[in-house]
Parts: sequence; C-alpha cells; structure tokens
Amino acid sequence: MNPIEFLRANRERHHEALCEWIRIPSISAQPAHAGDVARSATFLAERLTEAGLETEIVRTKGHPLVYAERLGAEGAPTLLLYGHHDVQPVDPIDAWKKAPFEPLVEDGYLLGRGTSDDKGPVYAFVRALEAFHKTTGSLPVNVKVTVEGEEESGGLGLVEFIRSERDRLAARAVVVADTPKFSREAPAICYGLRGIAALEVRVTGPTQDLHSGGYGGTVENPAFALAKILATCKDDEGRVAIPDFYDDVAAIPGDERKRMAALGLDEEAWKEETGVPKLHGESGYSAVERRWCRPTFEVNGIFGGYAGAGSKTIIPRSAGAKISCRLVPDMSPARTLEVVARHLRRVAPPTVRVEVELGHSARPVVVRTDGPFVQAAARALEGAYGKAPVFVREGGSIPVVNTFHEVLGVDPLLLGLYNPDNRAHSPNERLRLDDFDRAAEAFVRFFEESGTLGAASSGPRIPSKESNR
Amino acid sequence: MNPIEFLRANRERHHEALCEWIRIPSISAQPAHAGDVARSATFLAERLTEAGLETEIVRTKGHPLVYAERLGAEGAPTLLLYGHHDVQPVDPIDAWKKAPFEPLVEDGYLLGRGTSDDKGPVYAFVRALEAFHKTTGSLPVNVKVTVEGEEESGGLGLVEFIRSERDRLAARAVVVADTPKFSREAPAICYGLRGIAALEVRVTGPTQDLHSGGYGGTVENPAFALAKILATCKDDEGRVAIPDFYDDVAAIPGDERKRMAALGLDEEAWKEETGVPKLHGESGYSAVERRWCRPTFEVNGIFGGYAGAGSKTIIPRSAGAKISCRLVPDMSPARTLEVVARHLRRVAPPTVRVEVELGHSARPVVVRTDGPFVQAAARALEGAYGKAPVFVREGGSIPVVNTFHEVLGVDPLLLGLYNPDNRAHSPNERLRLDDFDRAAEAFVRFFEESGTLGAASSGPRIPSKESNR
Repeated sequence: MNPIEFLRANRERHHEALCEWIRIPSISAQPAHAGDVARSATFLAERLTEAGLETEIVRTKGHPLVYAERLGAEGAPTLLLYGHHDVQPVDPIDAWKKAPFEPLVEDGYLLGRGTSDDKGPVYAFVRALEAFHKTTGSLPVNVKVTVEGEEESGGLGLVEFIRSERDRLAARAVVVADTPKFSREAPAICYGLRGIAALEVRVTGPTQDLHSGGYGGTVENPAFALAKILATCKDDEGRVAIPDFYDDVAAIPGDERKRMAALGLDEEAWKEETGVPKLHGESGYSAVERRWCRPTFEVNGIFGGYAGAGSKTIIPRSAGAKISCRLVPDMSPARTLEVVARHLRRVAPPTVRVEVELGHSARPVVVRTDGPFVQAAARALEGAYGKAPVFVREGGSIPVVNTFHEVLGVDPLLLGLYNPDNRAHSPNERLRLDDFDRAAEAFVRFFEESGTLGAASSGPRIPSKESNR
Repeated sequence: MNPIEFLRANRERHHEALCEWIRIPSISAQPAHAGDVARSATFLAERLTEAGLETEIVRTKGHPLVYAERLGAEGAPTLLLYGHHDVQPVDPIDAWKKAPFEPLVEDGYLLGRGTSDDKGPVYAFVRALEAFHKTTGSLPVNVKVTVEGEEESGGLGLVEFIRSERDRLAARAVVVADTPKFSREAPAICYGLRGIAALEVRVTGPTQDLHSGGYGGTVENPAFALAKILATCKDDEGRVAIPDFYDDVAAIPGDERKRMAALGLDEEAWKEETGVPKLHGESGYSAVERRWCRPTFEVNGIFGGYAGAGSKTIIPRSAGAKISCRLVPDMSPARTLEVVARHLRRVAPPTVRVEVELGHSARPVVVRTDGPFVQAAARALEGAYGKAPVFVREGGSIPVVNTFHEVLGVDPLLLGLYNPDNRAHSPNERLRLDDFDRAAEAFVRFFEESGTLGAASSGPRIPSKESNR
C-alpha cells in the first residue's frame, strides 16, 4: 500500500479524528477556553507522534504551540509546515445550524468552528505524514511542523519561538496551510503578500473642548482640520497624492498583468459581495491589480469630539485617525511611514498641532513562481485536485509569514487547499470533505516532489530592497 | 429704610443664607442627588415666600422648578425673572480647596459649587424682592419668577411648563440672571444670541467592515470619503464654502462694528485662554465679530472604524460626523439645514451612500439696545456697579431664552452681573461677594426703573424673518 492508497483506506477514520479535534472548543481569544486550547495542543501532539514525528508542546506567555519534526531524510530538503490549532469565537451563536463544536456533515461539507480555519488544513498534512509513516516508514523530505495556538487572538508566542529557535527552524521553504482555493474547482498558490505600514495622526487645537457658541469662529476646529489634512492624501481618482509615495513602487510585470487579466475576476460579483454602490480605486488598474499589486492609503478609524446620542455643541480639543498603507515591492515600510508622516505635518495649518505616532509595519513579500518548491507544489496540487493551481497574490499581510521570512530568510509558500465558501470567522464555518481528502493527497504528492529537489538548491530568492540593508 | 439700605443692613444675613443654599448639593445630572435638588427647590420656595411672593413648587418629569409671582402693581409692566437652582457635578473633586458644598470665603470671593452658576445671581434678585417687601411692602413692577432645576442636565421640564402655561407667564421682558460681567469692572447687557442648526451625516460603503488587505484598493473608504466631503465645507480662509450658506446673513451694522472694535478685546489673551497655537476664523472679520455676528460650521464629533488601542486594519463600513452651525440674523435654521444637507449629498462620490439626519435648531435672537427695558437695565447696572454696562452679544444659544422668545414672544434681557473669573463648571467655582451685593442692588434699581415704564410700551421688537411666518 502506498501513502495515497493509505489515505483512501483510512478516509473515514481520518474524518472522525478531525471531528474529535473540532469538538475541542479551542477559542484562544476567550480566557475561559484556555484549558481547551491546551487540550487541542495535546490532541494534535498525539496525532503527530502517531504520525512518526518527535513532538513537543511549547509553552508560551499565551497559549501553547505544537512543534514537531522528522529529520534524517539525507540529501533531501527541509520544509517548515505552518498552521494554527486555535479557533475564532462563535458569536452569534443563534445563527448556527447546530452547536459550533458538534460537527455536522451536510451536502459534502463538514460544518463546525475550526473545520476550515485551520484544523482541517493542518490535519490534512498530519494525514499525509501518517500515510508515509504507516506505509514506507520514512519521509521523502525533512519536515518541521509549527502549529500555534494564538493565531486568532494576536498572541506573540510563535514570534518569540521563531526568534529564539532560529537555527532549529532552519528550512528551505515555509508552507502555510491556512488559505482557500482560488475557486470551487481550482486550488491556488499564493506567491505574494502586500506589506503594511501603520500610523496614527492626532490633531490638537485648544487645551480642552470648547463651547462651539462661545468660541466658534475664533479657533480652528481640530476635527475639521483633520478632515482637510486627510483629504489631501488621495485624489478623486483614488491615487495617493502624498509626494514621493510611489517612488519605490515597482511596475507590475507585463506577463503578470496578462495573467491577472486572464483570471477574469468578476468585478460585479465583488461589488455584490462587499455591498458597495460602486467599486473604487486607483485609475489605470483593474480591481485585482489594485488589490494585489498596488499600494493603498486607508483610514482604519477616525475619532474626535462627541460621538454619543444626540448632540453636544463643542469644538473638540483634538481629533485623530488611524491610518495604514498596504505596501508592494519595492516599497520600504520605514520610508513609507516617513513620507506619509512628513506630508501630514506639512499640510497641517498653523492653527493646530499635529502629532504622528508610527505603528507596526511589515515588508511586502513576493517570491518567484518559477522556483523549484513552487513548481513542485504546482505539480502536487494539479495531481491531487485534477486542475492546475491558480497563481495568486494576497492583498493582506500575514504577520507570521513575514516573521518566517525576516528571521529565517525562508520563502513563503501559501497553498490554497479548501473551498472558498468556507465561512471562516462566521457562523456555520465549513470544510468541503472532498477538498480535505485532496489536500491530504496534495501534501503526499508535494513531499514526494520536494524530495527530488536535493538539500541545497531553492532557486534564487528575490530579496526586497530593505532586506539588503 | 429704603430697599437699598435694607440690603446693606442685611448683608451678612443674606451671605449666610446663600451659604446655606450652597450646602445643598443639587446636582441635577446625578440621580443620587435627586433628593437634594428637591430640597434646593424647597429652600428657594421658602425664601421667595418670605420675600412676599406667591410660590409654588412645580413637579416635572425630571427635577422640580420653582414658580413664584407677585402681581398687583397696577399700571406697571410685568417682568419674568429666570435662573436655575441646580448645579454642575464636582469632578475632579481633588482639585477643590475645600469640599465643594462647604462654602469658603477667600479674598472677597465665596467659593463653592453653584455660587456663581446660578444660585448667587438668583439669590441676588430674591434679596431685591425681599428688600421691597420688608421696606415698602410692595413692588414697583409685577414679577414672575421661574427657577428651574434641570439647566445643567438638559431637562425639558421648564420647556413643557412654558408651553403649557403660556398665558400665565405673559410678560414684557424675560430677565436672565445667568451670565457674567464683561470684565472685572464692567457689567454687561447681552442683546443677541446666535441660533443653531445641528445635523449628523453618515457615510456608508460596504455592508460590513472589510479587511483592508483583502479589499483595500477596490472600494472607497467611507472614513476617507467623509473627510473629503467635510473638507469641501470650509475654505482655507475659514469661510463656509457651502453654496447659498450666506444668502440670508445680514451685514453687521456699521455702528455695531465700531462699538465692537472699541471694546478692544485682547486676541492674544483669547489665544492664551484657549491654548490654540493661532486664532482662526473667517477672513475680513475680527475675532469678536466672528464670535458674535458671523455664522459658523463646526464638526462637533467625528467617528468611524476602529478607535481603540493599537490598530485594526479595516476599511470601516461607515463613518459619521456631528455638525452644527451657529446662525445669525437673518438666517433660518430650516433653510440652513437644507443647504448644508443638500451640499453634503451633492459632493459625495457615487462610491458611497450618504444619509443626513437633521437635528435640533434654534433661531438667532437679537433685540434692540434702545428699547426701554434695556435702557432701564443699563441705568440700573451703572448705578449699582459705578460703571456703564457693556453691550455684548453671545456666540452661543440659550435654549430656554429661545423658548421664552418663541412661545411667549418676549425679548430676552441677559444681565451680566458677576465676576468673569467665576470658574463655572470647574473646581473652585466662585462668586465675588462685592458683585453679589451689587447685583442685588442692581435688581432693586432695575425694578424701580422698570416701574416707571408703564404696562404697555416695550418699544418695537425686531422680529426675525422666520418669526414672521
């Protein structure tokens, strides 16, 4: 029996094992569930041990993560597999068809909190590892597994683990099992993430809120001044109007533009999904180009003065906005923060004081699609799903991928494995069971493909400008 | 003994009576003090009865108000005296030199919550009424007194009372004892109030908050769109840029501009007081002109998206602003709301939805300064304070004055009686005792002056355009 035959023979047992895991309500954001997150880690550690890995539960300041490895595949490359075993809260509970932690099979889907995000995808690679262990008794690649318990609650346990265990985690590629397929039919490989640069601007006028009758007409209104300042940051065509903002933005390669155009993404469906009256963005680019390959300037929050019921006739003493920019190659977060902050200060009128507080940032990451692991993954996915993967980028940033990339210097490889209609973070989250089976098979194929690549060659990485410094 | 001699002879007793009233913590905003507000009403009612008035405590949906009258001065006009007996909360309590409700005399000031706002000024006219009662046994004018218990908490008890008792409250002038002198030396008469027109604008884009990575670049950001919309409402010179906004604004009469210029208001001191780096307002007008005689467009509050600690990388589904305009003759609140709402809708991009909710409004009120009651008050104040009153306008609106004006058709007469450094609403609120004594004397003189005016003539009122409709 080969590993793929093993998977088929053990299908029901594996489905039941996933259900058992789903029954553990590992909600990391809710302290009352801390014990469940720990139980979830123990469950996973036992399955990884059964799959032949040396396994360890790593305590962090927050919830435990599971680390496991199986090395010794001499001459073969090392892969780092990433996922998370914690889940989102379940509110609104009334919207669920059945209790969120009582898995339910319906029309080929397994419903339950954590089925697709992210216990199913993680369990898919556990199945593949077990399949090799129980059939060939060895793995074609070296494997290191890190499955954290704080992804949904912003914990830093994994980041600290990566920083402190830098050498131990050395690998040739980090494989992320936490993203959906491109469509119902086609799996995906994500080869790029935008970066981010966040800051907060605060505009202050008087030393305290002033009566808008007694003082109105004699002093600048900080909330209005803030609006004026922000309004200068983008033009009516959606282009960021901050000087030097686009200086380092790399043009989208012509073949990539063609590929994106060929995807035929449905802008009308996007409008429906978001509910906006009309799509909007930088002129000269399609929606998908703007989403994946162009930088943005977004107001994430705006605040100042009175926001309660009714009215309060004041001139607020201050107003502020939380701003974040999405970055693309070859923008640097530090330089972006600098040009944005400089602009905000420069356009402010002399009637107010402006403070800018710089926030978190992450570099954009784009890897070559012709690298050997990407190509190995493409062959594996096509074999398992019967359809070639679509190469996509993500508009967002995945912080842990940046950490892997920056600390370990490892290229990310995000495998889009499961149904897009997965309702992650929402009621009735679900995983298509056929995708669950194919994902396990895809990992078997990917490990086999990767095993042929040798220990050293990973193809040249495209370093970002900043990582050269 | 005449009434003024009576005041001087009873000075210490009256000071002690005010202290007794101050000791009642009639904080209307705090339900725990409801009993104290009621006790405060009883205290005042007893003093008014002792002063020879027929007195009644009027229950409202909120805190009780005190109504009292002494009529029967045949051929003499009727004055309606207004004040309030509730006080502000006392936070921050640590900043007080002594407990807020234990009056303390220091350097000629009486310190305590409610000393200047508004128990002292109210008690000043009670002293005057008592002085007539205990000396001449009658009043030279007919007097109706309304002292509410909800001024500091926005209660509507008095408004309902005015509407339901319209005929009973008929008077020739409403005298408001709730404003400060122009300066340490000069008392004031306020002959104009700005009106107000409030509204709220809400800009909505997607049906829910969107991930700024996954969606950024494809949809309009409602918080940014709001900033763009607001930015169109005023130009950089502080002029409202909304079409038709100034259509009905009356030019400031030349003699009034001269009088305001002669006041020599210190703009540097205003800057110090407010703490702004630079004053700001409509070009072509002095600060005092802008404050009293020009309309404004103010953002009272702005909100949308994430305003907590750290950052949340979303495109908010909506953002909003609370806006209010101060109005001057001959602007109409209804028309102002109309032109502002129309503009906000018109400049909004098609990528968002804009809703405008109209809020409360009040007409501007300006009365002639050559009317007989104004002139009587001027003579009374000059006699009591040894300095002619300064004629001022207020930038704010006093809602109850508008109610008196609109329901009863009575001109307001705001007498500025007490020290400007009164710290109303702040810790160590204080009343200068010399002003307290002079205010009582001013009321005696004003009642005498008014008694000579006869029952009918009040001089022509200047109706606002709207009150003609």
